Amino acid sequence: MTIDGYFLGIDIGGTKMLAALVDAQGHVLIKDQQPTLAAEGEHEVIRRLIHMIESLLSSVPNLNARSMVSLGIATAGILDMDTGTIVLSTNLGWKNVALGPILERRFGIPVRLINDASAAALGEWLVGAGQGTEDCLYVTVSTGIGGGVISGGHMLLGASNNAAEIGHISIDRKGPTCKCGNRGCVEMYAAGNSIARLAAEDILAGKPQTAPLAELAGHDPNKVTAKLVSEAASSGDPYSISLLKEAGEALGTAMVTIIHLFNPEIIIFGGGVSLSGDVLFEPMWNTIQKLGIEDMVKDVKITRSSLGVDAGAIGAALLWKYENQAVTI
Amino acid sequence: MTIDGYFLGIDIGGTKMLAALVDAQGHVLIKDQQPTLAAEGEHEVIRRLIHMIESLLSSVPNLNARSMVSLGIATAGILDMDTGTIVLSTNLGWKNVALGPILERRFGIPVRLINDASAAALGEWLVGAGQGTEDCLYVTVSTGIGGGVISGGHMLLGASNNAAEIGHISIDRKGPTCKCGNRGCVEMYAAGNSIARLAAEDILAGKPQTAPLAELAGHDPNKVTAKLVSEAASSGDPYSISLLKEAGEALGTAMVTIIHLFNPEIIIFGGGVSLSGDVLFEPMWNTIQKLGIEDMVKDVKITRSSLGVDAGAIGAALLWKYENQAVTI
Repeated sequence: MTIDGYFLGIDIGGTKMLAALVDAQGHVLIKDQQPTLAAEGEHEVIRRLIHMIESLLSSVPNLNARSMVSLGIATAGILDMDTGTIVLSTNLGWKNVALGPILERRFGIPVRLINDASAAALGEWLVGAGQGTEDCLYVTVSTGIGGGVISGGHMLLGASNNAAEIGHISIDRKGPTCKCGNRGCVEMYAAGNSIARLAAEDILAGKPQTAPLAELAGHDPNKVTAKLVSEAASSGDPYSISLLKEAGEALGTAMVTIIHLFNPEIIIFGGGVSLSGDVLFEPMWNTIQKLGIEDMVKDVKITRSSLGVDAGAIGAALLWKYENQAVTI
Repeated sequence: MTIDGYFLGIDIGGTKMLAALVDAQGHVLIKDQQPTLAAEGEHEVIRRLIHMIESLLSSVPNLNARSMVSLGIATAGILDMDTGTIVLSTNLGWKNVALGPILERRFGIPVRLINDASAAALGEWLVGAGQGTEDCLYVTVSTGIGGGVISGGHMLLGASNNAAEIGHISIDRKGPTCKCGNRGCVEMYAAGNSIARLAAEDILAGKPQTAPLAELAGHDPNKVTAKLVSEAASSGDPYSISLLKEAGEALGTAMVTIIHLFNPEIIIFGGGVSLSGDVLFEPMWNTIQKLGIEDMVKDVKITRSSLGVDAGAIGAALLWKYENQAVTI
């Protein structure tokens, strides 16, 4: 089956809604971005979401309803993909919102829901850095750590569509307890939140080596962010460099488990923290080389996301097409 | 496409070769078992393998060459599935043996090679304990730990067919160095070899609590096996029970990572050590319950292999059918 026409994807985050209209080859025709303003409540957010979609579609000349094939929604939380329901979204404060059916009734086209990290993985695989591969992993290192897996040309979803909880790989069974209940999750060492927390703890403890970072944060440990640590590292601050080195090593340890289990061809990194660059990735790569089974590590390509922040919206746009056409674009 | 006829699978291990002839529904018609005698060298082993196949086929009344569809070989080691070559088998002492082409020329039917743990996973999924599921994990706890993964109704193989190295999930980044180069691999804590090694070390160190086990082993630490520890535990030896409890907890920690990544519906355990039963599985299950993300853990079914030692041969037999008929039996 050849599917032609246009596909709309929207990545609904806690702070912004990002929409992308793509063609069957995944080329982005038009994008739009609006604040989510989740505090206004679900009815208001959905009203503005619908308005955003209508405005975006009406802005494309010659685009009629018949050439629109499907609509995909990417968001964080517990989703029921079969019924199109957002079961629980802590970002949005939503519980049991049947967004799929609401949008299907409004626009008369199939609507698909997908986890935001899985959507980004799908986008990167179909039309981004993973294009042409069969075994592709996407890891987002942001406030938390998440990801998505393509294995043998199929998206790995799991029995309840919750697979690829990459942030909750334990790297140390004796490590600190994560909010998920597990101990020593990689997210506790390498996510943006954790990097900021570790730095704030060291500043509070008065460790002398934190002085330059503390100054950048105006001597307020609450103002330390992973972005600030990354900037300080770029300008040569030894403490920030060592903090990102430790994060990179923790990430590398988790990637070894990932590589041993999925035997991927490529691992694509997205998310704000991954913008830290070599100061994070070099220790990660060294750890992978040191600890991984040589035959499985030697051919793995590690790369940066090519779709950037649009990956989730593009992946969501192409989800229905992927599901209904069992071939790669 | 409907594929009918008979399928032969052979699991070639370091000590024995196990053959199973199955029909299209995976029912075993006839089995045979011969010693591998790997020390005799590859030519002799292959000669006896061919003879074993011929005898087995000739023993079935009315079976003619035309009703034989395919032949599958399961074995450990590094395999090139595309060319049917055993690249490296430490069990057999083979290097670059093109077993697939040799058998294809001899029998005139397609021959497929597959890793033995993947074959067992396929067998259990298609006609064993995992039948009817879409997301099924098979874990073998034997001398080492291995396994196979079925995700969304597809066998997970990875870029170089080396996926699902379940024994080499690190559960402690500061743990002892594994022969694979990684640190704290679950195999170091819960495989048969490791259980025996840990017991032998404790006996050598003269720990008083090891006295009953030491006596069972004739006071020779080299004679301690995981089977002996398991037997001692069954008869109530507290030291052996505690050793298997620790192994179970380590296994549980690795299973949490497995569950977070694959979100399976069922995990099937095979291999000799898993015959230890509750003394191993209860601490494993408690660890999973304690550390796993509740939504992903609560519906996972943990069960024992239903095909037992035949799983690999049956899975190998059905491999060609699985690959050429994109539906479950």
